[in-house]
Amino acid sequence: MLDFMKEAIKEAQKAYEEDEVPIGAVIVVDNKIIARGHNRREKLQNALKHSEIIAIEKACKKLKSWRLENAIMYVTLEPCPMCAGAIANARIAKVVYGCKEKSAGDGLCEKILTSPRLNHKPELEYDDKHSEEISKMLTDFFSRKRQT
Amino acid sequence: MLDFMKEAIKEAQKAYEEDEVPIGAVIVVDNKIIARGHNRREKLQNALKHSEIIAIEKACKKLKSWRLENAIMYVTLEPCPMCAGAIANARIAKVVYGCKEKSAGDGLCEKILTSPRLNHKPELEYDDKHSEEISKMLTDFFSRKRQT
Repeated sequence: MLDFMKEAIKEAQKAYEEDEVPIGAVIVVDNKIIARGHNRREKLQNALKHSEIIAIEKACKKLKSWRLENAIMYVTLEPCPMCAGAIANARIAKVVYGCKEKSAGDGLCEKILTSPRLNHKPELEYDDKHSEEISKMLTDFFSRKRQT
Repeated sequence: MLDFMKEAIKEAQKAYEEDEVPIGAVIVVDNKIIARGHNRREKLQNALKHSEIIAIEKACKKLKSWRLENAIMYVTLEPCPMCAGAIANARIAKVVYGCKEKSAGDGLCEKILTSPRLNHKPELEYDDKHSEEISKMLTDFFSRKRQT
């Protein structure tokens, strides 16, 4: 089976090469990738264009539905509150993230995904298989930014 | 001075007329409305198209920047987690909402807006002046939906 987290990392790599914070996501239905996204906030000058949001938009367009009920999202980094909320709003079944966000120690991502406000509660899974590679890519990116 | 919450209610009314959950938002800079949005999730079959998201996208486009640092958002209903996260990500200075979301009793919106994960913490204000009108519009909408 295709390593979907590796595919999300390929998306993060595209962001890195475009001088964007390197985060990537893919959305999978029936073991096939139906949408990909990488962070493009700077390029598009739009605060919403995180990898997860771009992938959700593409998936909704592809399936002609706002409900992504059978979908699994693989994303390199633990989602921010906006993206966690978007994942729940889009009724995504499960999110697998590849690296923990250090500043998210308050468990906010999980709180959002299990909020009584939202009608749907996606499953949340941490897959640490590639966490060092993802973390290194982020550290390298921010070190490079500080030098320029 | 223009009653900006009334302008947000006009946006919610547009959503109502389009058979969408009636929620509306406007974004104000220097006492002028620079962007408007109403919920279009069903029409666009896109889970992300809440009024706040549409207004933020328009404002970023208008200002050619993802940073909306001097902006105030007026929105008819207390934002959902996705929109609260988007408001913080877009660095909006302040959010004024016109009606409390009953199922949001867990204070999640406020938790998101003050999360250590986010670099920016927008001010949050509840303006109850038109809360009955907003609440009635939502109740009417859902009663009508149940009958059809």
